[in-house]
Amino acid sequence: MDKVTPRTLSGFMELLPAPQQQMEKLLGTLRRVYALYGFTPLDTPAIESAEVLLAKGGGETEKQVYRFTKGDSDLALRFDLTVPLAKYVAANYGSLAFPFRRYQIGKVWRGERAQRGRFREFYQADIDVIGDGRLDIMNDAEAPAVIAHAFAELGLEDFTIRINNRKALGGYFELIGIKDRTTEALRTVDKLEKIGAGKVRELLCGDCGMTPEQADAVLEFVTLEGTDEEKLAFLEERADKNELLAEGARELRAVIEALPSLGVAKEHFAVDLTIARGLDYYTGTVYETRVNSHPEIGSICSGGRYDNLAGYYTDKQLPGVGLSIGVTRLFYVLSEQGMLNGSVVTAPCDAIVLPMTEDTAFAAHAATVLRAGGVRTQLYTEAKKFKQKLSYASRLGIPYAVIIGEDELAAGEVSLKDMNAGAQARYTPEDAALEIRSALRRLGEEKLIKVQ
Amino acid sequence: MDKVTPRTLSGFMELLPAPQQQMEKLLGTLRRVYALYGFTPLDTPAIESAEVLLAKGGGETEKQVYRFTKGDSDLALRFDLTVPLAKYVAANYGSLAFPFRRYQIGKVWRGERAQRGRFREFYQADIDVIGDGRLDIMNDAEAPAVIAHAFAELGLEDFTIRINNRKALGGYFELIGIKDRTTEALRTVDKLEKIGAGKVRELLCGDCGMTPEQADAVLEFVTLEGTDEEKLAFLEERADKNELLAEGARELRAVIEALPSLGVAKEHFAVDLTIARGLDYYTGTVYETRVNSHPEIGSICSGGRYDNLAGYYTDKQLPGVGLSIGVTRLFYVLSEQGMLNGSVVTAPCDAIVLPMTEDTAFAAHAATVLRAGGVRTQLYTEAKKFKQKLSYASRLGIPYAVIIGEDELAAGEVSLKDMNAGAQARYTPEDAALEIRSALRRLGEEKLIKVQ
Repeated sequence: MDKVTPRTLSGFMELLPAPQQQMEKLLGTLRRVYALYGFTPLDTPAIESAEVLLAKGGGETEKQVYRFTKGDSDLALRFDLTVPLAKYVAANYGSLAFPFRRYQIGKVWRGERAQRGRFREFYQADIDVIGDGRLDIMNDAEAPAVIAHAFAELGLEDFTIRINNRKALGGYFELIGIKDRTTEALRTVDKLEKIGAGKVRELLCGDCGMTPEQADAVLEFVTLEGTDEEKLAFLEERADKNELLAEGARELRAVIEALPSLGVAKEHFAVDLTIARGLDYYTGTVYETRVNSHPEIGSICSGGRYDNLAGYYTDKQLPGVGLSIGVTRLFYVLSEQGMLNGSVVTAPCDAIVLPMTEDTAFAAHAATVLRAGGVRTQLYTEAKKFKQKLSYASRLGIPYAVIIGEDELAAGEVSLKDMNAGAQARYTPEDAALEIRSALRRLGEEKLIKVQ
Repeated sequence: MDKVTPRTLSGFMELLPAPQQQMEKLLGTLRRVYALYGFTPLDTPAIESAEVLLAKGGGETEKQVYRFTKGDSDLALRFDLTVPLAKYVAANYGSLAFPFRRYQIGKVWRGERAQRGRFREFYQADIDVIGDGRLDIMNDAEAPAVIAHAFAELGLEDFTIRINNRKALGGYFELIGIKDRTTEALRTVDKLEKIGAGKVRELLCGDCGMTPEQADAVLEFVTLEGTDEEKLAFLEERADKNELLAEGARELRAVIEALPSLGVAKEHFAVDLTIARGLDYYTGTVYETRVNSHPEIGSICSGGRYDNLAGYYTDKQLPGVGLSIGVTRLFYVLSEQGMLNGSVVTAPCDAIVLPMTEDTAFAAHAATVLRAGGVRTQLYTEAKKFKQKLSYASRLGIPYAVIIGEDELAAGEVSLKDMNAGAQARYTPEDAALEIRSALRRLGEEKLIKVQ
């Protein structure tokens, strides 16, 4: 029979068992923390009608969509979790209570050009709060608090959520008379680090057609140094001259002031007046998150406030605020940077039961007792030499071997071998379960991420 | 702006928040129990190269596959989790330790004719153990033990895993001289309940061309009543006349005798000599699982032993044994049959914090304390009347409201309202967390499934 080469498509992450266990820990932590803040899990289909999925139309994304027909149906794979949310809320408006808080962790697909660290299939982990008509600004503070909590649980301490407000940004640009050139101005300013302030100023005056005063005002804004309070003061000093700027400054202050009471440490957030976010539907608060020691990674969690979630499906005004973690890319980067903690158990089980005689009934009983005690247990009954059995356990990094020979069988006990320390002692199966559990509790406190 | 109707494709399950919480509980329980038995989680891509996915070729399945091109690539969505497992094991053979035990819970896609209770996108929850060259029969006992444990955790008590062995079946058919007509014989016998033994006998002699003695021997086999021991004895009495039958009988006895020591109650398994399973790659043990009070549902968990997992990818002999739960269909049926327990909390949170004054800082602090205490908490700061806030909480079925008015604020306390009992009492936020946790522990013992 001719063989087909078993291969996985490029741009599609498929992990070996040990890193997959780490990925599960990442996903599990996000699920748990998202739920802790009262977000309800949603699960929308991977496939949607192309008409529904592409209702908003246009843009780079549309070219990347996996679109195909089946029978008469024009179908597409979801390329984010926001459009399915919009569809869901519009379709189920009458059955939902608002504010509607949902999280969704699931795969999305984009046929991007394949390159290292870029994925065509990747997990997004989103939280959004959707209001009916209006939505309190406190939600804009709570969303980053959820993310900060999740990162802390994962062991990532070295991050800053940068927060801005599109109204403050837009109001300032209105004030200095360049409202119509906001996009170009921001695109030019993005080159600041690369080409320096002098060159940016030239481009602002040249390509963007600003007066020297306007260019200076833009540069003053985006290079503003100082504490959060000083940045807020800069906005507030100009608030009486522009209503939009005033509103943005009020919202930004409300968010910044609420974060500490929501449990977010001061070092984990900062006002950053330069953040705009590409997507044109953000209208208020915007967020980006950096790993401070690795700025080259870019933003690991972004989002913001939008006025209207589902305008292409419904006349209902549905404002919302949300944040999204690109989980697959984050995992890839953490792994590449050596930031994953090697002490986290990645074995398929905590204990492996090794019967040394033909009698497997007591071994099966011992495995059952261990499982009842919450120990993830493999029963190993293959006809192999003892040494091979132990080497199997070592290779998988299984922390405990539970050995049952003639003596143990006669005594109704097991020999518990700590595979790392090498120590071995006799227990009843029940006591072995307690012993393993207490050791694992210590190991269970290890965080997934460990930055040296 | 023209609106697009927000709709979900037919045959694609998309649940409202409360049933989605039930579904999450189902999936979470399966994940936990599968892991408890030392199965490691895998996550393979939804999209594979069509050549790889359809390497085995042919059959009904191929017509149902979602297949499409993107650029030059001929792609397909996975239609089960077994082919991706075969690909994974063949591709990563050198990196895996055998026996390799994996579980995978994920969506698969089949473009079947849409009808009530049939899904085009559905979750499968699979466990498989793969050996390198050979695999001990004990694995055939452990696989159904995992499933029995999972169902017990879910609260499903009324099920039987029916077990047969293809070698016993094949050996018996060899023995009576109808080996070449096994498939037709089984297809005919499947009509037993519908058309009765007399008519089946006629078809066996007519359409299948058997002698009356052969037809009687087939009927004797498939209508055999009695205990597991009696059925095993029936096989063993004939074992010296056919080697295949003898081997099947030995394997079946080994499985049946091991199940009790693996913690499976006698009422949850039974020998059923009529089970063959359609898929032609099963070669030994085969399983089907019925809900006894609802035989019309059909099998909710099926599988078996196969000689060679990945023959179309590799020359390595990789025998395995596995079981698969069709989760989406199971959930649909449980829901339709009213078998889901209404007492399981399906609210997005356990407690909702309702500040009654403008001061939200203490409310945010209280929410943070509750979350630190493991209480899933929503902070509600929308500008609504108290009555509307409570009605929001009721509508979502949130068990506890944490009310903070002027008095509470002054005292640094909260009023904890039990939304079901109506009772209300004052606590510090820390004590409120303890109180809610202890009540939820009781509620947490509620199983997902409750058969009246």
